[in-house]
Order: sequence, then structure tokens, then C-alpha cells
Amino acid sequence: MNTKKRITSFFNIQYPIIQAGMVWVSGWKLASAVSNAGGLGLLGAGSMKPELLREHIQKCRAATQKPFGVNIPLLRHDVEDLIAVVVQEKVEIVFTSAGHPGRHIEKLKSNNIKVVHVVANIKQALKAEEVGCDAIVGEGVEAGGHNGGDEITTLCLIPQLVDAVKIHVIAAGGIADGRQIAAVICLGAEAVQIGTLFAATVESSAHENYKRKIVEAKDNDTVLSFRKVALMRMLKNEFALKAVQSEINGLSKEEMVSFLDHKREMKGIFEGDEINGAMEAGQSAGLVKEIYSVQQVFDKLIDEYTVAQKKLGK
Amino acid sequence: MNTKKRITSFFNIQYPIIQAGMVWVSGWKLASAVSNAGGLGLLGAGSMKPELLREHIQKCRAATQKPFGVNIPLLRHDVEDLIAVVVQEKVEIVFTSAGHPGRHIEKLKSNNIKVVHVVANIKQALKAEEVGCDAIVGEGVEAGGHNGGDEITTLCLIPQLVDAVKIHVIAAGGIADGRQIAAVICLGAEAVQIGTLFAATVESSAHENYKRKIVEAKDNDTVLSFRKVALMRMLKNEFALKAVQSEINGLSKEEMVSFLDHKREMKGIFEGDEINGAMEAGQSAGLVKEIYSVQQVFDKLIDEYTVAQKKLGK
Repeated sequence: MNTKKRITSFFNIQYPIIQAGMVWVSGWKLASAVSNAGGLGLLGAGSMKPELLREHIQKCRAATQKPFGVNIPLLRHDVEDLIAVVVQEKVEIVFTSAGHPGRHIEKLKSNNIKVVHVVANIKQALKAEEVGCDAIVGEGVEAGGHNGGDEITTLCLIPQLVDAVKIHVIAAGGIADGRQIAAVICLGAEAVQIGTLFAATVESSAHENYKRKIVEAKDNDTVLSFRKVALMRMLKNEFALKAVQSEINGLSKEEMVSFLDHKREMKGIFEGDEINGAMEAGQSAGLVKEIYSVQQVFDKLIDEYTVAQKKLGK
Repeated sequence: MNTKKRITSFFNIQYPIIQAGMVWVSGWKLASAVSNAGGLGLLGAGSMKPELLREHIQKCRAATQKPFGVNIPLLRHDVEDLIAVVVQEKVEIVFTSAGHPGRHIEKLKSNNIKVVHVVANIKQALKAEEVGCDAIVGEGVEAGGHNGGDEITTLCLIPQLVDAVKIHVIAAGGIADGRQIAAVICLGAEAVQIGTLFAATVESSAHENYKRKIVEAKDNDTVLSFRKVALMRMLKNEFALKAVQSEINGLSKEEMVSFLDHKREMKGIFEGDEINGAMEAGQSAGLVKEIYSVQQVFDKLIDEYTVAQKKLGK
């Protein structure tokens, strides 16, 4: 894998492979394993209270000498407490998502933190660049979990973002194969962010049922729903199919909010409730064939990438 | 552009670039221009009665010495008459879509016609291979017009199809840029099928208003609707936004059918009705910046492809 990219120098990592910060999935075990394998591991603060995040940061630092980061969803009511923790713990890299980075960027940048914001269209990308983010993750609608309302796919989004901004562009959404890494580098991305494939690894803190459901998923086994609340992609199960049907039947925003409630993700991902839980996953689930270790994931991605690179070179 | 692919030999064309057969857009002028430029032009029979198709085939043959084909939507009530015309006129390549190729393939293959079927998931791809199709077009949900109900994106669909079948895989959906051609070749596709970019060319028979709307479209200016009838992607306008809202409000299948009616595509694409017409287009519309000639499109695609190829090689 060609590793001399602006962005590998910027993060001081070997491979342009970033593991997405995911609720109930990416604690210190997963993040440190990814960083130790030469990528960039991210702790997912979305399912952590501030003091738990502090514990994970400290354990992650003890488990790897390599750089790692923290993903912070900006819509959290206690977002300032989470940011205070990453500043106190001298975290060097923060990925922000689900909200406006402008309100928090000064605090982060004045503490020498590299800030990367997740976007789903050109307007959000230009805004992130304008407020001073160092990089953006362009996330296509094939991604698992919460999704941009415009439903732009990775293939269409990335070249348009690359043309629109000067900062680093990282591609996300639907990527679980080295051929796709080669593909998005052709589109102009400098790195990839991968969720679902890492969610199903040995080192992920998710429930075994959830990992197994990802491995079993076929090409068409995810659905999008909750457009009136916040668009979300998940594996098909009783809960997800009920959500889709409720949307088709025209349920109101309030009814959909009440149907979703706040513990569905925990139920699905952490407790392994295959019936009533929200098992968030990307369309890439169809490409995940085994529960691998993180090191096996890197070996697989690099092999597939190399084959694709040769194919294009011919 | 590296042009020595199995598929360029198979179709006897120079570049692995196929122009999608599109209603009201791809008559003999567009198809012959594409074939003359070294790609594969397709006549779109979807908006032609059998005798009009015959006329377009004859005019196309007069306008180019190169191979060209015909796209036939299999759900047409007079599909057998359309097939009779392509057989009588000795067309060598037929792309079938929107239906089951099994019912018609014997007639086509026994007349030495190369048959390519458009699919949107693995199941359809395996079926097409089983009945004897020579190739498939894997079309992601970013494509304009009618779309697979599973809403699988091109980035996720293509590698899964390549792994599932032995026949040629052509990638479609969201492609309007040479960087994307390089990307889908990394995914394992042998060629691309491009719609929207060719729909907006000088040689396209669509209305100028429609071409202008494609050029003006931004990254998020298409929507999907008509899930209860047959999923369709189109440019945002009054009609499209009303359709989306009707779907959100939970209108029944019958109400959606009556709202769509059968002349919306003609109104939008051929008559240029920007308010009440269905202006079908892919998410790639955001990448189309000008009304180009077909030759300019080829020059642009090849330049962009070459840059992407070098980027991956580094």
C-alpha cells in the first residue's frame, strides 16, 4: 500500500486507514489495536460519560505508543464536559460529528488538537473548512448509523468534496474492502474511515450477536429509516423493518421518536438484542465475511488494495 | 486510458465507456456519436414504438461504422415487437432492463445477439448469469430514473457482483467523471455505463431546459421517490418535491400511481417542463458542469482517468 500521503504524515500513522468512533463498539481495546496495526484508532465518546471517556483514554495510552483520537458527537448535552476531558488528557486528535464544529473549535485548536469533522454534503464541508477544521470525513449514505439527510453516496460525494475544499478529505461510507480503498483514493480521498468491518472484529466491544449479524448480512440486508428524526442505517431485523413500515405508513415525527427511544442502539449493539435492538451497520456489511482480528483486517485490506492497484495500472 | 480489457474485445470498442439507453434522450444522434468516439452507444427503446426504433437503428447504422446497441425495458407490453425489430435489423448488442431476461434470451441469443442485463443486487446478477446473459450492468442507487428497490450504492454493489459472477460486470450509477471510472475499475468492473452526463450533451435529444437543470444541479439536487410504485431518482423540482412529500405523508400505492401518471418523463425530459415534469437524473448531476459535445465528454473522461490512475500508482 502506498503510504506516503499528506495525511499519514499529518496524523503520523503508517496506513491511511482510520477506524470510526462508534457507540458501544470502539473502546480502548479496539482503538489501541488499530493504532498498533498502523492505522488511526478512535475512541467513540458517543456512548461514554465523561469519566468513562477519561478511563478509556488512559487505558488506550497505556496500550499503544502510537497516535489515537476521540470521536465526539457535538449534539451531546454534556459535550463541553467531554471536550474538557480530551483537553485535560492531552488527546491530540478529535473527530467531531453530528453538529456544528464552529462552537467548539477554538477550545480544541488552542490546545493543539487536530480537528476533523464528519460531513455529508458540500455545504457542510465548506463550513468545516471555514471554521478551521484540519480535515473532513466525507461520509456517504451507505454508512451505518446516523446519516446525512441528503443521502449522497460515497462515489458521488468524495470527488465533489475534493473539488470544493483544500483541507484533507477522508472517505467513509460502505468501505470494508481494499478494492474500495483504492477506489476512493482514485476519487481524490487521502484516507478512509471504516466502521462496520471494525465493529465486527475480535477487539470490538460489541455483543457477539451483533458481530454475527454483520457477518451473516447479504448485499441488501440494511435499511434506512427515521428520516423524520435523524436518518439511520441499520441491519434488517424486526425493529428495523417495523421502523421502515411505520415510515411508509406516514407516522409523525413524535411517533417515530417514541418508537426509536434512546436505548435501542445499546440494546442492539451492546446487549445483542436481535429482535428489538437497533443494530447499526453500513451496506459494507455484505462484504464482511468473518469476525477477524484487527491485524487480520489490516492484512486483508492491504492485500486487496495491492491487487486493485495493479489492476488499474495495467 | 488502459483499454485492453476483456470487455472492449467483447464489444469490439476502443474505450470501456457505454452510454446508457435513456428515454427521450438517446436516439441515433447520441448513440452514433458515442460509438464514433470509441465507446458503445445505445438507442433507448423505452420511449420508442417499434417502427420508430427501426428508423433509429437504420439512421444509427448510417451514421457510424462502429458497434452500437439497443436498450429494451422488458416490462413494455410490446416487448416482443421491439425484440422482433432488433432481430430483423440485425442489431448485435441488446441491453435489457426492468424485467426478467429469461423469457426473451433464447430469441436474442439464437440470433447471435450479445445480451447484457441491468441488475441492482446479487440475486438478480446470479439469475442473469444463469439464464445465459453475457454481461451485467450493476447499477447503484445513485443512478437516475428507475432504480433497484434495495437501494444498494455503486461502491458497495460492484465488488459484491464481481465476487458473485464470472460474466463481465459493467458499473453504473453516479458516474460522470474519469476519477470514478478509475474507481470502479479498482472495484473490479470492466467498463462503465454513463447516463446523466450523456443526457446533457449537445447530441442528446432531450430538451434544453432539462440539460440546463442537470448542469445547474448541486451535490444534493436529486431525490428518490415512488418507492410504492417503482423507485425513481429525479432532479428536485415542484413535481419531485411533491412526490417526496406525498410519500412522507403516507399516500397509498394507487394515489402515487395516479400522481405519477405516464407522461411525466416525457413532460420533463422531452418537453422541458421544469415544474410538472419528471426530470430523471443521477446524483452525478452535481459533477456535470457544462453541456459538452460527446467528443468533449470522452476527452474529459480520459484526462480525468489518467490523473486518477497516476495518483493511485504513486
